[in-house]
Amino acid sequence: MMVVIVKGVRVPDSSRERMVRAAVELFQKRGYAATSFNDVIEHSGAPRGSIYHHFPRGKEQLAQEAVRWYAERVARRLESAVAAASATEAVELFVTGARDGLVASGFMAGCAVAGVALDVGPGEDALRSSVAEAFERWRQILAEVFRRRGATPAQARRLSRFVVAAVEGALILSRADRTVQPLDDVGVELRAHLRVALGGQ
Amino acid sequence: MMVVIVKGVRVPDSSRERMVRAAVELFQKRGYAATSFNDVIEHSGAPRGSIYHHFPRGKEQLAQEAVRWYAERVARRLESAVAAASATEAVELFVTGARDGLVASGFMAGCAVAGVALDVGPGEDALRSSVAEAFERWRQILAEVFRRRGATPAQARRLSRFVVAAVEGALILSRADRTVQPLDDVGVELRAHLRVALGGQ
Repeated sequence: MMVVIVKGVRVPDSSRERMVRAAVELFQKRGYAATSFNDVIEHSGAPRGSIYHHFPRGKEQLAQEAVRWYAERVARRLESAVAAASATEAVELFVTGARDGLVASGFMAGCAVAGVALDVGPGEDALRSSVAEAFERWRQILAEVFRRRGATPAQARRLSRFVVAAVEGALILSRADRTVQPLDDVGVELRAHLRVALGGQ
Repeated sequence: MMVVIVKGVRVPDSSRERMVRAAVELFQKRGYAATSFNDVIEHSGAPRGSIYHHFPRGKEQLAQEAVRWYAERVARRLESAVAAASATEAVELFVTGARDGLVASGFMAGCAVAGVALDVGPGEDALRSSVAEAFERWRQILAEVFRRRGATPAQARRLSRFVVAAVEGALILSRADRTVQPLDDVGVELRAHLRVALGGQ
């Protein structure tokens, strides 16, 4: 997981994209449940009527797109970062990405996917699937690095899941604590584990 | 973290306690933001007026008490479970506690503390502190086990934080995936890491 600071990254292409980005930013800060269509409109500055035009299936549809958008953005950064990385370097990049975003937001913005994950209701199965796919996307990028460094398929699956889970959890702890210590502690232990599991790779 | 299934554990002592328990259960399932006072009243069956009497500072006060109640309940179970446990057994008990609760709820109920953590707003510092204290309470119980098994204070702090973070993250992944595989994978890797870090203890 990397916490992507969305605000001001580049000029949004359209009111639709502005709304998706605004939703991401709000989910990072307050989760899915506390974010209304109105909040997204206000935050994005997009015309009020257009949100119903762009997202006729409502807030769940907007959230699905926001989760996908965020997942893809994190995935692309991660992919280019880990292209030539060792297993421990890949983990370090993943942890650092989360850490930097959290610090840059003044400990206000966590992972947008987690912010949706814990608010998904029983009737929102499509959104729950989007959340699962987002985690899976990041996991596979890490698993690929571990495979290249000698892990068996089963080991790569376990290790990559371990890294995604530990960093997601550490982000929650760090946000609650307002200190990067949990992320730093988890980073140290993850790298130590990877070194042993993959023989120094 | 253990996911405590609250419903029907024992007869609640009072309408106040009924409301706290109802809040815990709702936070586990849908988080803090999506849970209103009205939901808690309905879910608890407590008299409508009494919630304002018991929680004059409103929903944040109720949430603080719910987080503390849940944290303490998990802590007590964990403490008695790990009393004579090795480091790897303690981790296994922690993972199993989370796993059992998630499965018993049909993958609907996660950690009440995490469900609040990601919804806490910028003005709710007291609630954020309660969340941080809850994680810290569990971390210290695990750190104590690791100390007994030969870890230095710094190592025990890092390892215990690692375990809490990884299990919290794995719970989110398992809930999104509706499978215990993330929790199982994380359990395998955590135990392997603990065995190496603490020399088979």
